[in-house]
Amino acid sequence: MTAEIVSVGTELLLGHIVDTHAPFMARIMAECGVTCLRRTTVGDNRHRIVGVLREALSRSDVVVTIGGLGPTLDDLTRDAIAEAIDEPLEKVEEVEEKLRKFFALRNIPWLDSIGRQAEKPRGAHLIENPNGTAPGLHCEKAGKVVLALPGPKGEFEPMARGPVKEILCHLEGDSVIHSRTLRIIGMGESGVEDKVRDLMEGTTPTVAPYAHLGEVHLRITARAPTAEAAERIIAPVEQEIRSRLGDTVFGTDSTNLEEAVVGLLLSRQETLALAESMTGGELGARITNAPGSSKVLAGGAITYQLSSKQRLLGVPGEDLSRHGPVSSETAAQMAEGARRVLESTWALSITGNAGPDVDVDKKPVGLVYIGLAGPSGTVVEEHRFRGVREDIRHRATQQALVMLRRALL
Amino acid sequence: MTAEIVSVGTELLLGHIVDTHAPFMARIMAECGVTCLRRTTVGDNRHRIVGVLREALSRSDVVVTIGGLGPTLDDLTRDAIAEAIDEPLEKVEEVEEKLRKFFALRNIPWLDSIGRQAEKPRGAHLIENPNGTAPGLHCEKAGKVVLALPGPKGEFEPMARGPVKEILCHLEGDSVIHSRTLRIIGMGESGVEDKVRDLMEGTTPTVAPYAHLGEVHLRITARAPTAEAAERIIAPVEQEIRSRLGDTVFGTDSTNLEEAVVGLLLSRQETLALAESMTGGELGARITNAPGSSKVLAGGAITYQLSSKQRLLGVPGEDLSRHGPVSSETAAQMAEGARRVLESTWALSITGNAGPDVDVDKKPVGLVYIGLAGPSGTVVEEHRFRGVREDIRHRATQQALVMLRRALL
Repeated sequence: MTAEIVSVGTELLLGHIVDTHAPFMARIMAECGVTCLRRTTVGDNRHRIVGVLREALSRSDVVVTIGGLGPTLDDLTRDAIAEAIDEPLEKVEEVEEKLRKFFALRNIPWLDSIGRQAEKPRGAHLIENPNGTAPGLHCEKAGKVVLALPGPKGEFEPMARGPVKEILCHLEGDSVIHSRTLRIIGMGESGVEDKVRDLMEGTTPTVAPYAHLGEVHLRITARAPTAEAAERIIAPVEQEIRSRLGDTVFGTDSTNLEEAVVGLLLSRQETLALAESMTGGELGARITNAPGSSKVLAGGAITYQLSSKQRLLGVPGEDLSRHGPVSSETAAQMAEGARRVLESTWALSITGNAGPDVDVDKKPVGLVYIGLAGPSGTVVEEHRFRGVREDIRHRATQQALVMLRRALL
Repeated sequence: MTAEIVSVGTELLLGHIVDTHAPFMARIMAECGVTCLRRTTVGDNRHRIVGVLREALSRSDVVVTIGGLGPTLDDLTRDAIAEAIDEPLEKVEEVEEKLRKFFALRNIPWLDSIGRQAEKPRGAHLIENPNGTAPGLHCEKAGKVVLALPGPKGEFEPMARGPVKEILCHLEGDSVIHSRTLRIIGMGESGVEDKVRDLMEGTTPTVAPYAHLGEVHLRITARAPTAEAAERIIAPVEQEIRSRLGDTVFGTDSTNLEEAVVGLLLSRQETLALAESMTGGELGARITNAPGSSKVLAGGAITYQLSSKQRLLGVPGEDLSRHGPVSSETAAQMAEGARRVLESTWALSITGNAGPDVDVDKKPVGLVYIGLAGPSGTVVEEHRFRGVREDIRHRATQQALVMLRRALL
């Protein structure tokens, strides 16, 4: 079963946005055992979209389009698919009804262009979109399959992970591809490869490493008649890898580091407070995305200005001016202040210079102090992170989570 | 002059890496006035790469390939280009000499595969690569141009920005493409289209809308002999759009909403405090990514648990239990508490239920209260946001910035 992905959008084509949806879809295809042969990006031009679709359908069994299903004049994917598979568009009354109600409720005047989202090529099925107005499309004709997904991330991802994955995984009859990803922190890609090289040479299951922003992911994949049979192939290899990599494996599949840490805190019935300077709330935003975080996150302080370190955390002004905001001492006092004020078991603090310029404190870009206050005292780590501002902030929050995880294990 | 970009690599195709090189190249093409028609990603398979190149050359004047020029067995772009333009590969002795010296100096044993990097299709020119071993290629045949760049970022970007941009900008004589993006908030994509539909039908300049997470972007683009001439075409249309859309236009080009708000606060020499419950620090993370935020953000409190609303912001416990954490009253008290504790001009608060489940307070998913405390009192808005947790949180921070911006204008 071969497939292609067609990303539609002039903004994508011209490079104003980086396409993360097509890689997401390619990974889902791999999980379903569908071989992705080619990915194409084309602008909002009906004639060219039709051309790309016809070529793709002549080569591959399945074509998945992303984007161009909305209500505006340059949303042309629906029309292009109808033309490429040579079927007329027809209106689905129930969908138009729902759209009219949706807009009426919000007091937005109805425009005919909105109604285009209620159209589908004859014979196509709609794929429900609980997160937006444009449904997806599932067309089958002459042994070929076209699936169309909307472009907005909050609509695309749930549809891709849900109904579209379901459709793709059942294209190939009764065999399924099943995989497990082990997420590893504190060891580089080559280090991981060194420890599991012999397993990477196997084919049942396959084992492959990928590097991700400060993490390494090891994916174990098996194809079998049922998910249970695949699981029986994967389980012993997973166990072997875990015994070799020890506690550098912090989670499986979509469990991210913040979820792993929140899980540890939940199981110990302990709480966490935050004091964020350089990261301005980013660590809090990560942690509060993890299920259960409302039970463990006591609260946090965003202390971007010196005075707020005094006002919210009670850090003494004379200490701040002696050591400066970017210092080991300030990191320690921020963590201790947060732990005291919020009466938590643990507190993490981050202070540093994320750039782009050497800041008022004359500290180099990338210099970061991370403090951890806990029941048996306070530790501070000094780091030099490389990269642009966004990378430095992300790595700082990542390392703060690594420190806390280590203390909790 | 039309062009296509071909990204080569199985890791790219399968989505293990996100392709940022192709967008980078597309932006360079736009700066040179070369029209990018299509981007294709193909795996490390010689037969398929040749197929993609032949198709691209049949449609477009220029094809730029990225990746697959290295020494390993799966680096096949050089061979595929030679086959696609029907020229034999020939060895360039000086390049092999240089490679041999390079490896000898580093005590790395010579392999014949390394020498493949010294080959080029007959008639091609080499593009120097000061940052790696594989030179780029510049082939011209039958009025078509093929440019090949290496994949590693540190080699690709300097070559793209330097010699390749030079070549692309001189293909079409002396015309440039220039564009301006107006960023709009508080009006949907269809609403914007309705107001500027007549302008969208023009071609000098072109006007096109794009929807972005709660914003609409209108891009005005002109081609002219010089940037100044293009600017003279764009300026009157920009002015007309601004007069029709009023203060819904919050910024141009890369200015995001948080930068616009920080800019307004800076110009008024006013400060802002935050009290984030549901968003857990995300609003703080957005604001502290804006230049100048250290002068205006007094600080913030992440009050994810009830007790932290009391401890950090002094919200009275009896009020919290009477109204519940997700309520208009609590939003007001959080904003007022943050403004009082951090002694700021303004304070924004966000409390709500981002899902996925109806939370302890039994409030529906998507219900959000946003409070704004300022010199002349406190206002609270109630919103029902749709989408997944991430969307609801993003929309809440977006709407908080919209509220503050409105108060500042």
